[in-house]
Amino acid sequence: MTLTAAAQTTSLDLGPARALSCRECGHETPLAAEFACPECFGPLEVAYDFPAVTRESIQAGPQSIWRYRDLLPVPSDVQSHPNTEPGMTRLIKADRLAAALGVRSLWVKDDTGNPTHSFKDRVVAVALAAARELGFTVLCCPSTGNLANAVAAAAARAGWDSVVLIPSSLEKAKVLTTAVYGGTLLAVDGNYDDVNRLATELAAEHEEWAFVNVNVRPYYAEGSKTLGYEVAEQLGWRLPEQIVVPIASGSQLTKVDKGFAEFGKLGLVDATPYKVFGAQATGCSPVAKAFEDGHDVVQPVRPDTIARSLAIGNPADGPYVLDAVRRTGGAIGHVSDDEVRDGIQLLARTEGVFAETAGGVTVATAKKLIEAGKIDPDAETVLLITGDGLKTLDAVADRVGPTATVASSSKAVKEALAGRG
Amino acid sequence: MTLTAAAQTTSLDLGPARALSCRECGHETPLAAEFACPECFGPLEVAYDFPAVTRESIQAGPQSIWRYRDLLPVPSDVQSHPNTEPGMTRLIKADRLAAALGVRSLWVKDDTGNPTHSFKDRVVAVALAAARELGFTVLCCPSTGNLANAVAAAAARAGWDSVVLIPSSLEKAKVLTTAVYGGTLLAVDGNYDDVNRLATELAAEHEEWAFVNVNVRPYYAEGSKTLGYEVAEQLGWRLPEQIVVPIASGSQLTKVDKGFAEFGKLGLVDATPYKVFGAQATGCSPVAKAFEDGHDVVQPVRPDTIARSLAIGNPADGPYVLDAVRRTGGAIGHVSDDEVRDGIQLLARTEGVFAETAGGVTVATAKKLIEAGKIDPDAETVLLITGDGLKTLDAVADRVGPTATVASSSKAVKEALAGRG
Repeated sequence: MTLTAAAQTTSLDLGPARALSCRECGHETPLAAEFACPECFGPLEVAYDFPAVTRESIQAGPQSIWRYRDLLPVPSDVQSHPNTEPGMTRLIKADRLAAALGVRSLWVKDDTGNPTHSFKDRVVAVALAAARELGFTVLCCPSTGNLANAVAAAAARAGWDSVVLIPSSLEKAKVLTTAVYGGTLLAVDGNYDDVNRLATELAAEHEEWAFVNVNVRPYYAEGSKTLGYEVAEQLGWRLPEQIVVPIASGSQLTKVDKGFAEFGKLGLVDATPYKVFGAQATGCSPVAKAFEDGHDVVQPVRPDTIARSLAIGNPADGPYVLDAVRRTGGAIGHVSDDEVRDGIQLLARTEGVFAETAGGVTVATAKKLIEAGKIDPDAETVLLITGDGLKTLDAVADRVGPTATVASSSKAVKEALAGRG
Repeated sequence: MTLTAAAQTTSLDLGPARALSCRECGHETPLAAEFACPECFGPLEVAYDFPAVTRESIQAGPQSIWRYRDLLPVPSDVQSHPNTEPGMTRLIKADRLAAALGVRSLWVKDDTGNPTHSFKDRVVAVALAAARELGFTVLCCPSTGNLANAVAAAAARAGWDSVVLIPSSLEKAKVLTTAVYGGTLLAVDGNYDDVNRLATELAAEHEEWAFVNVNVRPYYAEGSKTLGYEVAEQLGWRLPEQIVVPIASGSQLTKVDKGFAEFGKLGLVDATPYKVFGAQATGCSPVAKAFEDGHDVVQPVRPDTIARSLAIGNPADGPYVLDAVRRTGGAIGHVSDDEVRDGIQLLARTEGVFAETAGGVTVATAKKLIEAGKIDPDAETVLLITGDGLKTLDAVADRVGPTATVASSSKAVKEALAGRG
């Protein structure tokens, strides 16, 4: 399944990346723009020979994910090419949310601070760097939201052409936030499944097109490791005891786990035990269902939830999520759309962080898992907030508004507040 | 004009802040919640006795504005209270925008990475810290946008009550982005001038209410110094030769200038010459007009521009802006609403940064000042991008959209792209 013949014959600098390795059969294949094992068609992921990496060498790096470049499949000169420089977003101690949830020690990793305000800037930045080295010249994706924003912005900054595919029914505001970056934005008559199928078809036909989540997916996915790295570094070079991660394809959860494990193996942190918890919306909860039922495989569903950025009915990394969660002693929960809205509001009101629906899923699921005794209230917990509330305003539109409407006088204000108290 | 009697009798820890000093007559008055000189009614600003500060002591601090706490009017333990931890946003080398504008070396300071995606998080964080020390318990503001978001979020995170005043005609999306944080949100029947007058009235009547831009304004305003500090630190501890700053009240421009000057005096950078340029929308350009006419005072105007976050018709710091710009050898330009839209699109398409209308003003004004020979194309220039495009989507709504709408087949894509080329 060689998609870019040119790239295979070139000597590649993808930093510490040694090969692509099949997650199913372990077969190794040379670094290239491939995503499926030539032996068993299992998914490929990046295998590494890591150099000596120290806390000091990382801290001497830039305030972006490139401080971890020695642990990512990117060229050593990655910083010399224009890119969006994502990462190193806030990790805030969330004492008020902790009190509301009844836990002792809680942190919120707020990835809304990224350039286009979601964690997708991380994975796209890694995909762009690898794609450049692999000989691609156009950055592409199918997406209805965060990924489209991130790809169009990263391509604009790099001076690359981009091709972003969206369903033609997408709301105007979501179209704008990608279209503003220029590039080619194709509205496809069809649903998101049609758009995805078209992306795979186009990736096979255009050898210069890098679909970040298709033909360069193994590299792209590694970008999520940086979420794990940053949490560990920002905690003061140690692993948290528990972490809650939203599940879409499931890739992010498995890579956060991978990031923690790598930091332990490299001696950057003590390899203390940690539990990984997964969060889904009930309207798209195939992985939670498989976890509850004790299954190793995930039964696809048709998504029906306001948490659209998590609405992947057939999550590619579902089995690996189940493995990571079970291996670490975590759990997977799911929450209704109303609970998602509650979660958004609870986070905003306690910590001043306005998350998109995915963040509401994470907070509400954490609450449910705490109440169920799955998350230990006495162990330290981190919540991953991966996208911004400004992108999903509709979720709270019927929930919040002015406290009161008053005449322009202090007397009117006094009366309004008295009536409220 | 003592607004908080209690605070005056307490021994205050506001870090290096020594007194409040009148910008007109120089009279010094003790640190308190005052904003007008008791002698001449001129505006008060914070005067300091700075401790020894080194690059190393700053770099050892957190990745937020609190790394500069020894230079801000905040308690030494400012980090021990929950706050939004703003600052240390990206400074990106903008080579593609530089090429488009015909300049040699250009940087973009992207303050959309702040917690609520504008520079207001900086000033509000400083205001909150000072207000706490001054004995206030409620964080307040009149605002139609960025400031409202920042105040409501900061109060939520701190566990304070907030009172935010907005005109009752404000669009629903803008109401939501403040209301989601909880707190008291009062929709006031009247225009923005009415809302502002009400804020001043309420500040005088409620001694526990800190209106960030009224009764604690001297402290609040100092938060903008951190933009200057960060630019200098992120350039590698040196000052840029030219910087372009949007003008609303004008406070930000004067504080960036103050930040550069302080870094020079403290020996943190070489005190090399720099020029400060101001940017306004033509529909609200009283400072640009005064600059062109050679006046020292600013004639108020009635704003009429899409750049609402800059639409202050009677800018309080206008005269000080004129002084800073003239003293450094800069200039002030202004641009039409269509040029603002062009500026937003140019920045997005070249650098992948989606700015609100204020950012469009900055980019478009820089372009105009370069074309007019006011900005030297061979000298290094920094553009301040202070707010996020997600907050002013309407500005580009009629400008951008899908490249094409296609059927779900690679053939249809090929035809659409061929027709385009």
